[in-house]
Amino acid sequence: MLNLNETHNPSLRSWVASANTNDTDFPIQNLPFAIFRRAGHGESYRAGVAIGEHIVDLRAAHKAGVFPMEMTPALKTLYKPRLNKFMALGKETWSALRLHLSNSLKEGAPQSAQLEACLIPQAQAEYKIPARIGDYTDFYTSIHHATNVGKLFRPDNPLLPNYQWVPIGYHGRSSSIKVSGSDFHRPHGQLKAPDADAPVLEPCKRLDYELEVGIYIGEGNEIGSPIKLDQAEDHVFGLCLFNDWSARDIQGWEYQPLGPFLSKSFASTVSPWIVTMEALAPYRQNWDRPSDHPQPLPYLDSHDLRNGGAVDMQLEVYIQTAAMRAEGMEPERIALSNFNQSYWSISQMVAHHSVNGCNLKPGDLFGSGTMSGPNPESVGALLEATVGGREPIMLGHGEKRTFLEDGDTVILKGHCVNDNAPKIGFGEAKATVLPAKEV
Amino acid sequence: MLNLNETHNPSLRSWVASANTNDTDFPIQNLPFAIFRRAGHGESYRAGVAIGEHIVDLRAAHKAGVFPMEMTPALKTLYKPRLNKFMALGKETWSALRLHLSNSLKEGAPQSAQLEACLIPQAQAEYKIPARIGDYTDFYTSIHHATNVGKLFRPDNPLLPNYQWVPIGYHGRSSSIKVSGSDFHRPHGQLKAPDADAPVLEPCKRLDYELEVGIYIGEGNEIGSPIKLDQAEDHVFGLCLFNDWSARDIQGWEYQPLGPFLSKSFASTVSPWIVTMEALAPYRQNWDRPSDHPQPLPYLDSHDLRNGGAVDMQLEVYIQTAAMRAEGMEPERIALSNFNQSYWSISQMVAHHSVNGCNLKPGDLFGSGTMSGPNPESVGALLEATVGGREPIMLGHGEKRTFLEDGDTVILKGHCVNDNAPKIGFGEAKATVLPAKEV
Repeated sequence: MLNLNETHNPSLRSWVASANTNDTDFPIQNLPFAIFRRAGHGESYRAGVAIGEHIVDLRAAHKAGVFPMEMTPALKTLYKPRLNKFMALGKETWSALRLHLSNSLKEGAPQSAQLEACLIPQAQAEYKIPARIGDYTDFYTSIHHATNVGKLFRPDNPLLPNYQWVPIGYHGRSSSIKVSGSDFHRPHGQLKAPDADAPVLEPCKRLDYELEVGIYIGEGNEIGSPIKLDQAEDHVFGLCLFNDWSARDIQGWEYQPLGPFLSKSFASTVSPWIVTMEALAPYRQNWDRPSDHPQPLPYLDSHDLRNGGAVDMQLEVYIQTAAMRAEGMEPERIALSNFNQSYWSISQMVAHHSVNGCNLKPGDLFGSGTMSGPNPESVGALLEATVGGREPIMLGHGEKRTFLEDGDTVILKGHCVNDNAPKIGFGEAKATVLPAKEV
Repeated sequence: MLNLNETHNPSLRSWVASANTNDTDFPIQNLPFAIFRRAGHGESYRAGVAIGEHIVDLRAAHKAGVFPMEMTPALKTLYKPRLNKFMALGKETWSALRLHLSNSLKEGAPQSAQLEACLIPQAQAEYKIPARIGDYTDFYTSIHHATNVGKLFRPDNPLLPNYQWVPIGYHGRSSSIKVSGSDFHRPHGQLKAPDADAPVLEPCKRLDYELEVGIYIGEGNEIGSPIKLDQAEDHVFGLCLFNDWSARDIQGWEYQPLGPFLSKSFASTVSPWIVTMEALAPYRQNWDRPSDHPQPLPYLDSHDLRNGGAVDMQLEVYIQTAAMRAEGMEPERIALSNFNQSYWSISQMVAHHSVNGCNLKPGDLFGSGTMSGPNPESVGALLEATVGGREPIMLGHGEKRTFLEDGDTVILKGHCVNDNAPKIGFGEAKATVLPAKEV
């Protein structure tokens, strides 16, 4: 365990009753951040922290005098409709705010009366993307995903020789990243059948989700000044759920030689809530490479839990088809994986990304890459689950899918739990595939 | 010719004498935008327009009453240290401002006395990147470059089958794009020799420039609503020079399967000046594909000059080594190319980028890709000029280069000129390679 403090105490309970239930994502040990407002009230978006079924309106709480004077500069950044300035303040500030909130929300806290007036039910809230994402980078850190996808294209040589040395990543499109609930139209793109002479412009026929973890950068670095591995995690604000929707047929035709482009840039979905690295401390795990794998180069090598360690974060994919919705059926789980399958740690991603001097900025987002585990039930994309669209998955009520159909809703969920700490959750990243528009 | 108006009149002269010389980049027919301030005066950055050797300080000009009242909202956006809000206002606004400036700067203009007090010598100015670049996309639009590079990797099959159908592009890193004059350190990265068992972390040994044109988006589009080809150019604010510095050895090891990443993200250089599409109207050219090439799909197909046409823009690369600088030698030109070599038009890039519903935003930047022409003298990167580093280029004073060495300054320049219009220029995009830092 590392950096555990009183905010992690598993026996802490809150005076907010809904935070003490077994099924909440948001007990007092979590305290994730979002940008929200009450829907339909003409309010401005601002920062909030989840507690049980409520949101602490931090602007209201600040105005109500819940926080000490010296925290005013930090709290003023939380009036804004994005967290970038708060993210830039660094981990001491994030930690101080967390501690004060934890103390104010725990049972018997003297601030409870003041703070109760600042709670807004999540049921009344709407959310916005929590940061201005300057740059978004998508990694490829599940060796299972890389191998599964590689097998489809190169059966004899599924894993490329650089994979175990380089945390493979590529730049993605930030403008089309939207918050959970932002449905999107099936994209058009150039598709080319293997035996066709020419491509056609048509709606994507092989639309897929990708189960990923999103990683928000906090403090950045100056251009030309790499972030060392042992300081890397200080630059990370927190994690979210991330769905990197993918048009496999567009991708297959366009991606040589420079990588995925329009096959990804039509939509990506983040969860509204960002769980801070401090909240995740009880769920860290050692991770060792298989001994027959090459060990990382020195700038990426650490056996320290914090720098090299994994996050034990269960990840789930649920689907609800239009037919299921019409019949009142709940979404069905189609994948269960874990972020501890990542071949590269968060710190390794940060250290590698900046080793060439690239400047990371507060609010930048990394995707983990599709976080597939080793089993068929743990793969994070239909491309893998259906072996390239050849073997449909069967849903419990009789429908089947090779790729997504119009009206399908995909929901990502994530939880951390272990014997020494309560369950904390990430809420959800959800969106529905709408029919293609005319072009 | 298209959309020519009185601002393009080749016989127009300015009361700013330096704008009427043969060698200026900035005659009254140009009027490009930058973000600038006087160096060393503690001033805030703001928008300016180049005229001869001066800059019209638009904030000062507005305050001096040079503009009509109805232009106040647009002018207020130009007080800011980035052009995004002005770019978002659209081409009618850009055009109205241009016309008023042209009328105010021409010989005999009654505003000359007021406006003269608002001129700042370029020699006193420093610049900033002119827009907050939300997303940066690099295209690959020179078929000569694609073929030359392809030959190095696939001698029998240099041009991939998608090239003539898809305007190939990929997402790039926006945070490390800096304005001309921002020198940078040679990046470290993973390098792997073909016969080595493992990579090493070392300073790049195959550092290269890429001669590109930068394309700034003006008005954006809503996510899910593609921009049609015949409206595409209305969404383009203007062009600049762009150097997409590239670490070829890092690129070779990292780029499979998802494309270039750290080989590009350490630094890119834009010129401070953006030449508007309206200023470029006299330099448009028809461009027809060779008849034995496949014709574009309908969403990309146009024989209209504006939608499918090229920009006749001469592009040059100059180098000044440390030894040349020490001996007081001027930079030497090592490449002369032209943006009319682009296989895809600007409108085709915009229409393709958004055909999947991807939302473009004001201030987004496209790179054209390395704009190589068909001849050895017209290639836009050392990788091509030296045939993959095998055949050094000789500089006039006896030095040679396969790739860039520490202390090398690379300068990109660009000009448009034809028989019916004066020469206009783009200033320069310049930076010097500093030695690698310790990591």
